[in-house]
Amino acid sequence: MTTKTLTDHLNWRYATKKMDPAKAVSSEKIDAIVEAVRMTPTSSGLQPFELIVVTNRELRAKIAKASYGQTQVTDGSHLFVFAAWDNYTAERIDEVVQMNVDARGDLPTLRAYYDSLKANYLTRNPQINFEHAARQAYIALGVALVAAAEQEVDSTPMEGFDPDAVDAILGLKERGLRSVVMMPVGYRDTGGDWLLPMKKVRKSRDAIVTQIV
Amino acid sequence: MTTKTLTDHLNWRYATKKMDPAKAVSSEKIDAIVEAVRMTPTSSGLQPFELIVVTNRELRAKIAKASYGQTQVTDGSHLFVFAAWDNYTAERIDEVVQMNVDARGDLPTLRAYYDSLKANYLTRNPQINFEHAARQAYIALGVALVAAAEQEVDSTPMEGFDPDAVDAILGLKERGLRSVVMMPVGYRDTGGDWLLPMKKVRKSRDAIVTQIV
Repeated sequence: MTTKTLTDHLNWRYATKKMDPAKAVSSEKIDAIVEAVRMTPTSSGLQPFELIVVTNRELRAKIAKASYGQTQVTDGSHLFVFAAWDNYTAERIDEVVQMNVDARGDLPTLRAYYDSLKANYLTRNPQINFEHAARQAYIALGVALVAAAEQEVDSTPMEGFDPDAVDAILGLKERGLRSVVMMPVGYRDTGGDWLLPMKKVRKSRDAIVTQIV
Repeated sequence: MTTKTLTDHLNWRYATKKMDPAKAVSSEKIDAIVEAVRMTPTSSGLQPFELIVVTNRELRAKIAKASYGQTQVTDGSHLFVFAAWDNYTAERIDEVVQMNVDARGDLPTLRAYYDSLKANYLTRNPQINFEHAARQAYIALGVALVAAAEQEVDSTPMEGFDPDAVDAILGLKERGLRSVVMMPVGYRDTGGDWLLPMKKVRKSRDAIVTQIV
């Protein structure tokens, strides 16, 4: 579909500050981004998060208020909310085990692996488990940002919101989920975005990479 | 360079369990993966992690011992270690401010933004700051896994290691860094990897995606 490389995508994308409310992203492009999130690798294959894709305008208006009024939440056409599991539970892990058994057969090594994982995770502090689940959601965020750029769709990774408020608006707490990061998607307002003409800023390779030979 | 899509890359890759020690990844491919990590978007542009690329065999043998003997650490040709800042500091944030001033000019809004960020971050619990930095490293992990697949290089996201031991082996603690996740890269041992012939397992879209219209 494209001959652009990942580096091209990473250079093209930027944290879009002003989106054009008149332009909606097609369902085909949304599907491609969702599929990338679904296929994202996660620790022990647990996929310990859910993705909420909000188009509803009233809910997005409420979420915008809980996000310091950031306009991309409502000016974009879709809002991706990454919500991590609040904790690991036997039931949640057993569902993953069953899915693996269904796909790969009932292998003793598979059972043993997840038994050991349960012995570890289920006795840990819930906050440690939540932080671990949140990190997995951030792997998916990285993949989703690439996926959006590949679709030539603009996006903004967004942490500046009140997670408790967003959880309440979307009914996440009662589902054992906590919002950790959001990603509005839409199309840049080329005339109205102060960030668009700015030079992209990244550290030099020397500043963040050490090679030990 | 390729007409494959992100979805193709995500389906091609897998958490390689056995790598071929006779095959080394070229420096061109390593550079492409490193560049993707460097260009990864992060919260407020802080890039609060460093990437250590280890080829040294003695150090990798020590790290393998601190990783439950996982053979990819030594059978791969390069080991990527993502090490998050242990805390946010005024000096670290000021370096980012200066980099932005150099690239974009000395904008009052830019100064105000980072002043506000410092007022928030520098008074927070260091553990909260470390967890926040770690999440940013996981965005880069997601991008790096895609980058490796684009280069048709195998990789394995790896959390199963003793971070304190790895920090000691690489001298990270004294640099204010903490290893959070690793990614050996190399080439799959097509005959010796039990996972390669197995069906890829992911949750259904219904299981992890909710659309709110």
